[in-house]
Amino acid sequence: MSDFKEVIETLRKFRDDRDWNQFHNPKDLALAINVEASELLELFLWKNWDEANKDKVKEELADIFAYAFLLAEKYEFDVKEIVFEKIQINTEKYPVEKAKGTAKKYNEL
Amino acid sequence: MSDFKEVIETLRKFRDDRDWNQFHNPKDLALAINVEASELLELFLWKNWDEANKDKVKEELADIFAYAFLLAEKYEFDVKEIVFEKIQINTEKYPVEKAKGTAKKYNEL
Amino acid sequence: MSDFKEVIETLRKFRDDRDWNQFHNPKDLALAINVEASELLELFLWKNWDEANKDKVKEELADIFAYAFLLAEKYEFDVKEIVFEKIQINTEKYPVEKAKGTAKKYNEL
Amino acid sequence: MSDFKEVIETLRKFRDDRDWNQFHNPKDLALAINVEASELLELFLWKNWDEANKDKVKEELADIFAYAFLLAEKYEFDVKEIVFEKIQINTEKYPVEKAKGTAKKYNEL
Repeated sequence: MSDFKEVIETLRKFRDDRDWNQFHNPKDLALAINVEASELLELFLWKNWDEANKDKVKEELADIFAYAFLLAEKYEFDVKEIVFEKIQINTEKYPVEKAKGTAKKYNEL
Repeated sequence: MSDFKEVIETLRKFRDDRDWNQFHNPKDLALAINVEASELLELFLWKNWDEANKDKVKEELADIFAYAFLLAEKYEFDVKEIVFEKIQINTEKYPVEKAKGTAKKYNEL
Repeated sequence: MSDFKEVIETLRKFRDDRDWNQFHNPKDLALAINVEASELLELFLWKNWDEANKDKVKEELADIFAYAFLLAEKYEFDVKEIVFEKIQINTEKYPVEKAKGTAKKYNEL
Repeated sequence: MSDFKEVIETLRKFRDDRDWNQFHNPKDLALAINVEASELLELFLWKNWDEANKDKVKEELADIFAYAFLLAEKYEFDVKEIVFEKIQINTEKYPVEKAKGTAKKYNEL
């Protein structure tokens, strides 16, 4: 079994053991990802990046991954595939010769 | 090579080809995850969950994964490991007998 | 009429002229605030604070205020009152002698 | 003194009594608004809008207003003016005859 499948299977079991699928519609999963993303953000608030607590970053990042995998599962997305598709799109939006060394958005390049 | 490693390697190559590592400090990566999480959220705004555009959900979710993997790479976190560690923590916070069928937070159970 | 009332009245008229009250339940207004807050955040992404475009900051901040006022209107909160109440709470959480010059959260003081 | 000025003056005094201006650069204020917006969002997570705790909504909304006013203060924006300017922009983006009764974005009208 691939790593992705193994993680998703484990998350699904955790969820179903608690009968939580009833709450996990995609809209609320999107909310959950935002809530966790903000808890990650808070670890850097009023600080330089190297002052954030690494163990807490680990936990909040894990929460983001967990809900992101559960949302992927809902739509039956293959995570590796959708990330590779998006990299392909971004390769066209951000050609190396234009995008190299600049943080500008594609519509400002 | 594991799926996770393969995705991270591909993202790293995309980033380094564009010389973007200089912008990718953990604080800004946390910002980027939040920006992408909100773009996902916007797809559900003023709508029921089943009215969101599935193709756009796919793209925004891929962006969240991409920045989440790049942040994991920064800290050299093993994604499978940190998700499994968090599931372990949540198994203790949300024991099946207490958490089954309720969406309450652990501190309200 | 107070400034707050005048702003809320103008926003309410804009909303009702378009028959948008039907979409503006508090949950979606909370989503909207998050979406706008992230658009503000994106103006600072990969940048120092003084590199953000001031005119765009103005627009995004105005959007946040607009939805925040519309949510206050839904619950019939008096904005001045709720902000003053919260300052009172924070005055107790962050007593000057403990909080002065530190960015720590109240539970770490 | 206008309501807005009174609120901003009170927030500024609270901040300066604690010598917190040193942390309040616009980028971190934008982060703070996002963190508070997400705490508001969490009150609606896995719930219908009418199941959220109204007292907590009041507190989180007050926090959003507080940081939004402090960011406005940084840039010396007049809050009433910037909201009215944005309503003017939106009046053009969303003409009544096109936007009435639909939640579509202006670029889809």
